[in-house]
Amino acid sequence: MIVQSSNNAAHPPKPPAKALTTQELSTMLGVALEGKTEALISSVNTLEDAERGDLTFLANPKYAGFVAATNASAILVKTDFIVSAEYKGAILRTDDPYNAFLRAVEYFCPLPVLEVGVRHSSSVIAGSAEIHASAHIGANVVIGERCRIGAEAVLRAGVILYDDVQIGEQTILHGNVVCYDRTVIGSRCVIHAGTVIGSDGFGFAENKNDGSFTKIPQVGNVVIGDDVEIGANCTIDRASLRSTRLENGVKLDNLIHIAHNVVIGENTAIAAQTGISGSTKLGKRNRIAGQVGFVGHISTADDVIVYAQSGVAKGIAQKGVYFGAPAKPLMDELRLQAVLKQLPDLIRHSSQ
Amino acid sequence: MIVQSSNNAAHPPKPPAKALTTQELSTMLGVALEGKTEALISSVNTLEDAERGDLTFLANPKYAGFVAATNASAILVKTDFIVSAEYKGAILRTDDPYNAFLRAVEYFCPLPVLEVGVRHSSSVIAGSAEIHASAHIGANVVIGERCRIGAEAVLRAGVILYDDVQIGEQTILHGNVVCYDRTVIGSRCVIHAGTVIGSDGFGFAENKNDGSFTKIPQVGNVVIGDDVEIGANCTIDRASLRSTRLENGVKLDNLIHIAHNVVIGENTAIAAQTGISGSTKLGKRNRIAGQVGFVGHISTADDVIVYAQSGVAKGIAQKGVYFGAPAKPLMDELRLQAVLKQLPDLIRHSSQ
Amino acid sequence: MIVQSSNNAAHPPKPPAKALTTQELSTMLGVALEGKTEALISSVNTLEDAERGDLTFLANPKYAGFVAATNASAILVKTDFIVSAEYKGAILRTDDPYNAFLRAVEYFCPLPVLEVGVRHSSSVIAGSAEIHASAHIGANVVIGERCRIGAEAVLRAGVILYDDVQIGEQTILHGNVVCYDRTVIGSRCVIHAGTVIGSDGFGFAENKNDGSFTKIPQVGNVVIGDDVEIGANCTIDRASLRSTRLENGVKLDNLIHIAHNVVIGENTAIAAQTGISGSTKLGKRNRIAGQVGFVGHISTADDVIVYAQSGVAKGIAQKGVYFGAPAKPLMDELRLQAVLKQLPDLIRHSSQ
Repeated sequence: MIVQSSNNAAHPPKPPAKALTTQELSTMLGVALEGKTEALISSVNTLEDAERGDLTFLANPKYAGFVAATNASAILVKTDFIVSAEYKGAILRTDDPYNAFLRAVEYFCPLPVLEVGVRHSSSVIAGSAEIHASAHIGANVVIGERCRIGAEAVLRAGVILYDDVQIGEQTILHGNVVCYDRTVIGSRCVIHAGTVIGSDGFGFAENKNDGSFTKIPQVGNVVIGDDVEIGANCTIDRASLRSTRLENGVKLDNLIHIAHNVVIGENTAIAAQTGISGSTKLGKRNRIAGQVGFVGHISTADDVIVYAQSGVAKGIAQKGVYFGAPAKPLMDELRLQAVLKQLPDLIRHSSQ
Repeated sequence: MIVQSSNNAAHPPKPPAKALTTQELSTMLGVALEGKTEALISSVNTLEDAERGDLTFLANPKYAGFVAATNASAILVKTDFIVSAEYKGAILRTDDPYNAFLRAVEYFCPLPVLEVGVRHSSSVIAGSAEIHASAHIGANVVIGERCRIGAEAVLRAGVILYDDVQIGEQTILHGNVVCYDRTVIGSRCVIHAGTVIGSDGFGFAENKNDGSFTKIPQVGNVVIGDDVEIGANCTIDRASLRSTRLENGVKLDNLIHIAHNVVIGENTAIAAQTGISGSTKLGKRNRIAGQVGFVGHISTADDVIVYAQSGVAKGIAQKGVYFGAPAKPLMDELRLQAVLKQLPDLIRHSSQ
Repeated sequence: MIVQSSNNAAHPPKPPAKALTTQELSTMLGVALEGKTEALISSVNTLEDAERGDLTFLANPKYAGFVAATNASAILVKTDFIVSAEYKGAILRTDDPYNAFLRAVEYFCPLPVLEVGVRHSSSVIAGSAEIHASAHIGANVVIGERCRIGAEAVLRAGVILYDDVQIGEQTILHGNVVCYDRTVIGSRCVIHAGTVIGSDGFGFAENKNDGSFTKIPQVGNVVIGDDVEIGANCTIDRASLRSTRLENGVKLDNLIHIAHNVVIGENTAIAAQTGISGSTKLGKRNRIAGQVGFVGHISTADDVIVYAQSGVAKGIAQKGVYFGAPAKPLMDELRLQAVLKQLPDLIRHSSQ
C-alpha cells in the first residue's frame, strides 16, 4: 500500500468559496438588487430546498408558486417578475436568471481542479509515449507505445490507452476508461468513467454450411473531435475500415452504443441507452432522446429531433420532430396514439 | 509481477462443507423427515439436474411432474404435498420448502468470505483517508483524499474512489467500481463490478445561435442508503445541485441508468437496462421490469408495478400495475393488445 | 511511474505491410487480373473513400454506381461483373470478391500481435494460479487463487480474475474485464473491454410484511464455450445454481445483459443492448437484433430470427422471423404496421 500526501490527490483541500453580501453578489453577477443588501450568501440551491444563506433562482414560471415559501436569502428572477409579498429575502433581477445562477454556481461550488504535471508513481507508461509536461497522469494509468497526450490533459486512475492513442489538450478521461489502439480524441473533451472507445465493431461473415461465423477484421479506428462529452459506460466501436467519428461538440449521455463506421454530426446530443447501428450518419444539431434505436446504413438531416424509445428504421431527410416505432413525424405518431387510446371502445361499439 | 500466497486471495482455500445425513439435515433445517434417514447429502441442485447426493426442492406445483424422475437423494416439499411413488429418495416436509432450501444452499455453498484487515501492497491510498482496521482493500485499489471506509467494508481489486467518498460498514464494492467525489454509500450494500457512481448528470444549455452547448456544472452528489444492491455496469449520475438518492433496500439489476437528481424510494426494485430520466422520483416498493424508460420530472406512488419495455411518460399517482408505451393501467394495455391482434382481420372485413 | 521499453508494449512497432503490384496481389489472392499489372497497392478501402494505391471491392450490386467514380487503383469484382468504362484501375475477378478482400485486409492491416510469455511487473498473481508460459499478462492484471490460464491467452491491462477462474488457449480478455470466481471461458474467445462475467444474478425473495428483500444466494457460475466473442461493457450473470452458459461460437455485441441461468445456443448472434431474462434458453443459430428483450423462463427453437426492439414474451417453438412487442411472426407484425399506418384516416372516415 502506498500512503501519500498530495500527488495522488485529485485536488488538494481548498478553502470554501468566500461568502458574499447580496450587494457584492449583485455586482459580481451584474444584476439589479432589490431589498436587503447585507444578507450573506454562501451557497446555491433550488427553490424548494434552499435554506438561509442560499441563493436560488426562478427561470420557469411553472415554479412561481414556490417563491413564497422558499427559505433562500436571495433569489434571481426575470426583470419584470412580480415577486410574492410573502418572500422576505433579497431580489436580484436580470433578463436571464438561470445564466446568472450558473455563474453563481461556478463561484460557490467550483469544480475540482487537478494538479498539473503529475505522473503518479504507479502509472505504467511506454517509453515511446509523448506526454506533455503539464498533463496529469493518475494512479495505475497504463499508456501504450507511441501515445501522445496533450497539455493539461487529465487521465484519472485506471485509464488504459492501448498503442498509438492521441489525447488532445485539456481533455479529461475519468476512471477506468479504455481506449483501444489508434483512438484519436480532440481537445477539451470529457469522457466519463468506464467508457470503452475503439473496441471491435460487430462484424462477422456467416458460414452458410453450419451457421458459424468468421470474424471480419476491424482495422479502422475512432476519431473524436473537440469539446465532446461522453457519459459513463458507453461503447464506441472502431470502424471496420476508416473511422467511426464523433464531430466537434457532440454530447452523449450514459450507456450509449455507437457501432462501427457511425458518424455523429457536430453539436448533436444523444440521451442515455440509445444505440446507433453500423454506418449510420446523424446530421448536425440532432437531439436524440433516450432508449432510441437506429438501424444501420441510414442518414438523418441536420436539426432532427427524435423522441424517446423510437425505432428509426429509415433515413430522415427533413428536419423536424420524429417519434414512434417505426419513427414517423411527431404529428402522425400523436394522431396514431390518440386513435389507439379510443380503439378498444370503438371496436366494441362497431361490433355490437 | 507480484507473486504472493495469501493476502491477495479473495479467500483462502477452504474445505468443502461437510456432508450431512438426511437425519442431520432435517434437524439442521428444522423440517420433518420421511423415508431414508442415512442417505448422505453433499450438495444442492434443481429437480432436473440433481444427482445422487443432492438435496432438491419443489416449491412451485408447476414442476411437480419432475419429482418422479429426479435423481436427488432428498427433496424438500410442502407439508401436504403427495410425492410420486416413483421417487425413491428421502422426503423433507415444511411449510416453506424454498426458504429451507435457501438455508441448505448457504450451508453447502457458502459465499466467499474475504479476509478482514487486508490492505494490498499495490493499493494507493491518500494520506487523509480514514480506513477502518477491519476493512479489506484489494489490489490496485485507489482511494482519494478524506475518504472514509467503514468496518468490514470490502473494496475488491481495481476499485477507484475519488475524494471525499464515504463507504459504510460491511459494504462490498466489486472489481473496477468507480465512485466520483463526495459519493456516500450506506452499510451492507453490494455494488457489482464496473458500476459508475457519481458521474456528471447530462446537463447542457443550448446556445441558440449555433446549436452548440455550454456545460451546466453538476455539483451535487449521489447518496445511497443501507442494504442497497446495484448490478454490474450501471451508471448513477450525481445531482446538478443536492443529491441523487437511492433509499434503503433498493435493488438494481445490471446496465441501469439513473440520471441526475433522481430519487428511488425504499425497497424499490428495478430490472436490467431500465433508465430513469432526470429529477424523476419513484415511490416505495415499486417493481420496475427490464428495459423500461421513465421521462424526467415525474413521480410514481408507492407500490407501483411497471411491466417490461414500458415507456412511462406521465406521473403515476395510484398504486397498481402499468404497462405499455405510453404506460397505462395493465387492463387498458391488455385490452389494446387484444384489439390490435384482431385488427388486421377486422379492417379487412370492414373494407370488403 | 514505470517507464519501459518493450514488455509493456501491446506490440512492438512493426514495419507497414510491403506494397504489392497488382500482378503480385492477384497471385497472392488467387484471382484473375485484368488491366494494369504494375500498379502499386499499399492499402485497402471502401469504393467511396478509396484513393490512389488502394484496393477496393464490389460485392453488393447495390453499390455498382460507385465504381465509375472510385479512385481505387484496383477493384475486386465478381467474375461476370461488367465494369464501367469510366473506371481506370486494375480489375481483379473472383467468385467471392468480399472474401478475397478480407484476405487483402489481413495482409495490409495485420492485427496487433501481442508478445507471448509476458508477465508485466505490475501484475498481481496469486501463488496458486497456473499460468501457461506462453500467456501474455498485461499491466495491473490481478489473478486470484487457483486460476488457470491457457497457452497464448492474453490478459490486457487491468483485467481482474477472482479465484478459480479458467481461461482457455488463445483467448483474449481486453482492458478492465472482470471475471468473478469460478468463471470458465473456452479457447479462442475475445472478450472486449469493461465486460463483467459472473456477477450475481438478480435474485431476491420479497418479505411480504414490508416489501423489503432477502438476497437469494447466487452460487452457480458462468461457462463460456470456444470461439465466443463478447462486446464491450456487457454483463453476464452467474447462475443461482448450476451455470449460465454461452455455447461454442456465440457472438454478442456491446452492452448486452445475460441474466442468471440463461443458455445461449451454439453460433447464436445477438446485437447491442439486447437483454435476456433469467433461465431463458435460446436455440442454435438464432439471430437477435438490437434492443430486444426476452422475458424469463422461455425457450426459442434453432434458427430463430428476431428483429430490433422486439419484446419476446412467450417461447418460440418454430424457426422463422419474429418482430414486434409482443413478438409475432414477421408477416403478422408487418400486416399490423400497415394497418396502423392507415388507421387514423380509416377511423376519421368511419366516424364521419
